[in-house]
Amino acid sequence: MWDETKIRVRYAETDKMGIVHHSNYYVWFELGRSEFCRTRGFSYKEMEEKEGALIIVRESQCRHKSPAFYEDVLTIRTKAAKIRSRGVTFTYEIFRAADQQLLATGKTVHIVIDTENKIRTTPENYRKMLATEVYPK
Amino acid sequence: MWDETKIRVRYAETDKMGIVHHSNYYVWFELGRSEFCRTRGFSYKEMEEKEGALIIVRESQCRHKSPAFYEDVLTIRTKAAKIRSRGVTFTYEIFRAADQQLLATGKTVHIVIDTENKIRTTPENYRKMLATEVYPK
Amino acid sequence: MWDETKIRVRYAETDKMGIVHHSNYYVWFELGRSEFCRTRGFSYKEMEEKEGALIIVRESQCRHKSPAFYEDVLTIRTKAAKIRSRGVTFTYEIFRAADQQLLATGKTVHIVIDTENKIRTTPENYRKMLATEVYPK
Amino acid sequence: MWDETKIRVRYAETDKMGIVHHSNYYVWFELGRSEFCRTRGFSYKEMEEKEGALIIVRESQCRHKSPAFYEDVLTIRTKAAKIRSRGVTFTYEIFRAADQQLLATGKTVHIVIDTENKIRTTPENYRKMLATEVYPK
Repeated sequence: MWDETKIRVRYAETDKMGIVHHSNYYVWFELGRSEFCRTRGFSYKEMEEKEGALIIVRESQCRHKSPAFYEDVLTIRTKAAKIRSRGVTFTYEIFRAADQQLLATGKTVHIVIDTENKIRTTPENYRKMLATEVYPK
Repeated sequence: MWDETKIRVRYAETDKMGIVHHSNYYVWFELGRSEFCRTRGFSYKEMEEKEGALIIVRESQCRHKSPAFYEDVLTIRTKAAKIRSRGVTFTYEIFRAADQQLLATGKTVHIVIDTENKIRTTPENYRKMLATEVYPK
Repeated sequence: MWDETKIRVRYAETDKMGIVHHSNYYVWFELGRSEFCRTRGFSYKEMEEKEGALIIVRESQCRHKSPAFYEDVLTIRTKAAKIRSRGVTFTYEIFRAADQQLLATGKTVHIVIDTENKIRTTPENYRKMLATEVYPK
Repeated sequence: MWDETKIRVRYAETDKMGIVHHSNYYVWFELGRSEFCRTRGFSYKEMEEKEGALIIVRESQCRHKSPAFYEDVLTIRTKAAKIRSRGVTFTYEIFRAADQQLLATGKTVHIVIDTENKIRTTPENYRKMLATEVYPK
């Protein structure tokens, strides 16, 4: 099951090739991830303040199938593919809404650290939130 | 007297018009400002930690004369135009190094706040550092 | 009369001060401007292809009243303040939707150039589109 | 053999966690790649104009070992790991210059397309340029 959110491509996201610069897909993945967390009541800020636990990006990856253009409306699909005690893996798909063309797929791997930058386990209640199945809104 | 620093235009800074997107000039102004402060031994971090004083951007402005292109080497000229107890104004000029063409001029106005977001005076010693004339390096 | 559009602050738009980096306000102004044009059937691409006319940014300016934070929902208000034969001036206001706090005001000045980078007049029909009053949607 | 280039972390590249936002590593990889190409006399623009051949990003990936901070001077190491008729793979390493700490490793895969967006072979002479060994400058 995928969570979905929509965005419209900004002019500033294009480059001189006339298409979206590839670095923006990582910003869009993050946007899908933020929406995914928000939908489940998962708050980074709260986890940080109550538990002293921070989630950081360990790895990110994107495969491009087709370019995105200025003003395209895109659908970002996000899934928590793996939820482990030591980290979380999200996967993504980005489609152009108009023609349902798949533009890119991606993955980000996250780990949890404490306030001393040591790797720690994801707090149990936060792990549960991420694992929540949210039925189509 | 202007301080000068050089950068090369990045591909990601261009947009679909084939020129640099105007929002990047503000990142370059900041870069000139950071270099200006570093040269004078002025450290934001130190001022924040020792004095609880934060400098924030109150206003920014840029006038474009001519576009910048991918791979252009640019000269950023920075000056502390006004140093007051309640804030600092920097002015900027951006030239293309190859032909000395003036591409843009700009201004940023900064104020100092304390840890409770209240406006306060710039700590005296930090104001002096900004006012230091640095002879051509 | 203002046109309005809404966005949510992205994590990537914040900086180490914990607030939105000021350069992003110019991306948001552009977003408001794009929406303004789209609503009136004004297409940059079409004007470029049919008339060989390109709109470029001549000047941009922003005054900050209060910071924006991660996940804030913002209202971008856009107005075509001046529509002249030689250019267009847009003004902007950015509010936080939750508490209606005014965060920033801004202005961008645009001129029209031809394919040889010479300043030219704005094509009449495009000028009319920008001047269209669009009643609250 | 690696090509090396140096940059200094910009304030605008940090995020509210106080470290560099991960999307910037892809901009830095591109910067290393641009420098790599420039050093060998390889010009994207020329290849596009003379051969109608465009290089696009097919895949990008980054693994983070340790965060980068504001004002850090970084060394970007770039290598053309695979040069094939149908594409090029670059690999990257990013170190903090001060303590030689490895911050990230990465990879980008590129393919060549013609003016009709069809995949084509990399022009032979451009492939040779990329394969040139450049002795420490």
